[in-house]
Amino acid sequence: MDSITRLSLNQITTERASLGETVDACARHGVPYVAVWRHKLAETGVGRAVRLIRDAGIRVSSLCRGGMFPAATAAERAARIEDNRRAVDDAAALGADVLILVCGAAPDKDIAAARRMVADGITELVPYAQKRGIRLGIEPLHPAFAAERSCITTLREARCLAERFDPATVGIVADVYHIWWDPEVFDEIARAAGRLVGFHVSDWLVPVGNVLMNRGVMGDGVIELRALRAAVEQAGYAAGPIEVEIMNEAVWNTPLDTLLPLIKERYLACV
Amino acid sequence: MDSITRLSLNQITTERASLGETVDACARHGVPYVAVWRHKLAETGVGRAVRLIRDAGIRVSSLCRGGMFPAATAAERAARIEDNRRAVDDAAALGADVLILVCGAAPDKDIAAARRMVADGITELVPYAQKRGIRLGIEPLHPAFAAERSCITTLREARCLAERFDPATVGIVADVYHIWWDPEVFDEIARAAGRLVGFHVSDWLVPVGNVLMNRGVMGDGVIELRALRAAVEQAGYAAGPIEVEIMNEAVWNTPLDTLLPLIKERYLACV
Repeated sequence: MDSITRLSLNQITTERASLGETVDACARHGVPYVAVWRHKLAETGVGRAVRLIRDAGIRVSSLCRGGMFPAATAAERAARIEDNRRAVDDAAALGADVLILVCGAAPDKDIAAARRMVADGITELVPYAQKRGIRLGIEPLHPAFAAERSCITTLREARCLAERFDPATVGIVADVYHIWWDPEVFDEIARAAGRLVGFHVSDWLVPVGNVLMNRGVMGDGVIELRALRAAVEQAGYAAGPIEVEIMNEAVWNTPLDTLLPLIKERYLACV
Repeated sequence: MDSITRLSLNQITTERASLGETVDACARHGVPYVAVWRHKLAETGVGRAVRLIRDAGIRVSSLCRGGMFPAATAAERAARIEDNRRAVDDAAALGADVLILVCGAAPDKDIAAARRMVADGITELVPYAQKRGIRLGIEPLHPAFAAERSCITTLREARCLAERFDPATVGIVADVYHIWWDPEVFDEIARAAGRLVGFHVSDWLVPVGNVLMNRGVMGDGVIELRALRAAVEQAGYAAGPIEVEIMNEAVWNTPLDTLLPLIKERYLACV
């Protein structure tokens, strides 16, 4: 627990900064990994992003995000698959091992149909990801996001979905913010052994206001981070990057040279 | 589906009105049941509330809420049990069959300990409830409330907890707002056969802002209300009251003589 060799700064934590500013801050503060978001990548351009990251000596832990498979029409679903293929290309260009899948929500009220569209979408995407050596990481999202971002809401559901595919290509991402409340969280982390391809940390602040922006810096909320990290390591994810992913206006408004030392301190103290 | 004989107005839906105003509105609009909240009961006084409800010719579907078992000290936990006994007394005085249990959250980060405190609390409360003929209805709350209101977050967990007790005294309440997202919701409703003591309806609005106040009138959101009602009826809750429970500022600011016709219309059209 006494080093930051596994620490990754998920770029959404520094949403107000450019990719260049974020990787420079990582380099200044000795943070070895960054997780890249595609909207930031689009601002910078892939070629330039690759150079910025390489020149800063930073590695990419994951690319966020693919997914968003459900849509009202077959044409739109095909377009989403095509966009996921481009995300796989981006991940490969960045040298990221993992493309995070935020699976998407129903275009209507039929969440069961949306879940089938997610399974179909992953099935279509897998051969392309496999060919390029990118692992797809299914990230179950908190049930508060079931109507807007992901119909895949629990570790159990993510695992049952992942188990339809080769573990070399399809895994699961455990983000504490999304899963901490689950009465089966420890059992399900154990059952995910061999499938875990990412571990994301933040904290759940109390009281909850806007549930999307309610993440806090580790130690500021109610999540038992150490116990969850131990469970994830026990399940085999013992050396991969640990991403700090915080969506929070106050965090976003903190200067990077104040924020990164705080994140390092809390990572060492609380994770 | 063509009558309102099972319709109950949960009093939180008319939070700005007194109990007297709410039961009078129910009587005017032919709504046969009301679900009473204890903070409103305290304003009115139990004796007067009993008379108001009886004089209006309205029945009480449930009293909300008991629960809130976890606390930092044994003395505080004992005080909570004592308060739950008073809630049982209130339910008996009102002629309500069911006391809704919102089980409570951890006083610290230890959600597993909180879950044990809930089980211990219900164990202590059961003999008193049994003696007075009140059923305790464990209501799993949406995981967004796990840190502040209820460590019991899924139907499965509520069922496993309820199964430790006699079904004549301890049951489960299915509230669509809390459970709609669950990939196992239909399986779990089926497994709850014989244990269901309440069915609450509203809707999940999109986009989510404040998750506590995000409920909508039935039909305004994404929940498959008819399918859930059919499942609940299939599981044996086929004649009991169906409560409309909506926490939403716009609903609260709607005059009762506008709101109640809307609720009736949507209940008939969507539930």
